[in-house]
Amino acid sequence: MAREIAEQPAALARTLQSLRPQRAALNRLAGDTRAVLFVARGSSDNAAVYGRYLLEVHAGRPSGLAAPSVATHYAAELDLSGVLVVSVSQSGETQEIVETQAWAATRGARTVAVTNDGSSSLANAADLALVTEAGTEVAVPATKSYTAQLAAMAILAGGLSARTDALDADLDRVPDEVERLITARAGVDAAATQLAATNEALVSGRGLTFGTALEAALKLEETCLRPVRGLSYADLRHGPIAVVDADHVALLVTAADGPMVPGMTELAHDLRRRGAAGVVGIGGDAGFGSAVDVAVPGPELSEPIAPLALIVPAQLMVETLARKLGLDPDEPRGLSKVTQTDPSE
Amino acid sequence: MAREIAEQPAALARTLQSLRPQRAALNRLAGDTRAVLFVARGSSDNAAVYGRYLLEVHAGRPSGLAAPSVATHYAAELDLSGVLVVSVSQSGETQEIVETQAWAATRGARTVAVTNDGSSSLANAADLALVTEAGTEVAVPATKSYTAQLAAMAILAGGLSARTDALDADLDRVPDEVERLITARAGVDAAATQLAATNEALVSGRGLTFGTALEAALKLEETCLRPVRGLSYADLRHGPIAVVDADHVALLVTAADGPMVPGMTELAHDLRRRGAAGVVGIGGDAGFGSAVDVAVPGPELSEPIAPLALIVPAQLMVETLARKLGLDPDEPRGLSKVTQTDPSE
Repeated sequence: MAREIAEQPAALARTLQSLRPQRAALNRLAGDTRAVLFVARGSSDNAAVYGRYLLEVHAGRPSGLAAPSVATHYAAELDLSGVLVVSVSQSGETQEIVETQAWAATRGARTVAVTNDGSSSLANAADLALVTEAGTEVAVPATKSYTAQLAAMAILAGGLSARTDALDADLDRVPDEVERLITARAGVDAAATQLAATNEALVSGRGLTFGTALEAALKLEETCLRPVRGLSYADLRHGPIAVVDADHVALLVTAADGPMVPGMTELAHDLRRRGAAGVVGIGGDAGFGSAVDVAVPGPELSEPIAPLALIVPAQLMVETLARKLGLDPDEPRGLSKVTQTDPSE
Repeated sequence: MAREIAEQPAALARTLQSLRPQRAALNRLAGDTRAVLFVARGSSDNAAVYGRYLLEVHAGRPSGLAAPSVATHYAAELDLSGVLVVSVSQSGETQEIVETQAWAATRGARTVAVTNDGSSSLANAADLALVTEAGTEVAVPATKSYTAQLAAMAILAGGLSARTDALDADLDRVPDEVERLITARAGVDAAATQLAATNEALVSGRGLTFGTALEAALKLEETCLRPVRGLSYADLRHGPIAVVDADHVALLVTAADGPMVPGMTELAHDLRRRGAAGVVGIGGDAGFGSAVDVAVPGPELSEPIAPLALIVPAQLMVETLARKLGLDPDEPRGLSKVTQTDPSE
């Protein structure tokens, strides 16, 4: 896991270079679609959550996440003409994702596969494949394949939007920013120590960085075997915040700019007032950094592109925490690399 | 909370009687829309999750959940012509829901409000209001207002579908089935005892009963102050299942029929093999009942309508558990009835 975290600057640079030329083909295939539907599970689902916000906010395209069971278990007769279905799977072989993409095509959708294997079933069956160049990922917890998927989402937004250039300047800087965060490791060990102090954790973000919060929660849960919830701060305030007490540590993620910084900063203050054992903050501005107990600096990238690097300190923190807890971050208990959700089928 | 749980048969009967005649108006307003987008938070969001599956599976309408921040924080310029936006709020006054509905209307959507207050801001601004007849709800945890929202979702599916009659026979039986479950309380106390034994809980369901799982998790969390995750069994298998050990109790919900019963039964076996402290099952068939440690019978209703009654044993269980833990189920710590997600605004 540590090696694959470190490989991300190169993986991101290769992926961006390889996928940029496909924006024209994306525009030809899907420039006139009305809506985008993502099909994914696990870390890929968290990448899709980012894709969903990015496409709505920066490509003006209504987007959502498909419920695969609507295809695989209910065989619903939906009209998906004018809809672009984007299936996301590192291996390209998760059966329910392959099946759902096939169903969508029969229901009239155009299909794009985002996968790390260009010869996979998912890539072969799609109208267009965006093949990420993460290289072989050996550790069970996805790291470089996840950030490469985020890069593919940014390319997708460019292909469907007239505002490509607005994202390009920041995209070019992503590999260097990720390298800088990995080298500095600022705040990472203090954050891992804070998280080790209690058994209960929750992770929160919102909007364009909500997917980052979900991915940090999933990494903590599957790698460190902690029960962790990932929640938008809006949902957190709407009930679950009641459980926060001195047994809880909170991890908050936010970009350095954008409309979510004030709300995330206020949430940090609120969680401390409620007596949380500790609040760890990744990213944000100076005000956010002073509102949390442990501040972990994020990338110097604007909010739409920040998620490509913002997850990296969280990956480092999870890897450090797993070793601190005596666990093997490369092969967590009870998980395998390619997950089938219905093993009995 | 106990009194309002008991009021549900009457609340459901009133709501169904009041809303049935609105199906024709729903069809005129939205019969030709291409897609449905729900806007909601908290328990209303869980009702929307049910609505989303029901509309996709039984009304052939692509449906999804809006991210309110796309409207309230990013003011995204989406084209929502041909889209029906359904906003769900018990009070009809949650500010971000009211704002998001107004934004959707300016972006070309047609709007339906599902609310318990016909004179609320949300109802007044919508093209059509589906006003639930739950009566005043005093306890902070939503119970009768939630099941009344589910009834509104079934009416909505009827209004948008050519298959109204298929749901009607079961809908007519809902109040009696809810009454029967409340009177019998079968398995409820044993389930509360099982849940009291450990501090970690997870709740799982899938498809049409996934919203039931999320709602049971939210009720447990906000009323019993337990950190609880609600997960589809597909997502559970895709990582978080790794954390299950002897500190965990699992609550599984499923209808008595439909395509999810085999998978939920296999999940019960799997969780027991992984050494979970206990598996409580609500609903299901005989095979499911014998796969769990504590079986709580559900309603005799087919899967599409079962969620209107399937949550009721979970409500009874949560109320019982709260009292067992010395908590006040009517006014949980740190929550208020009408939630604003951005209190500082």
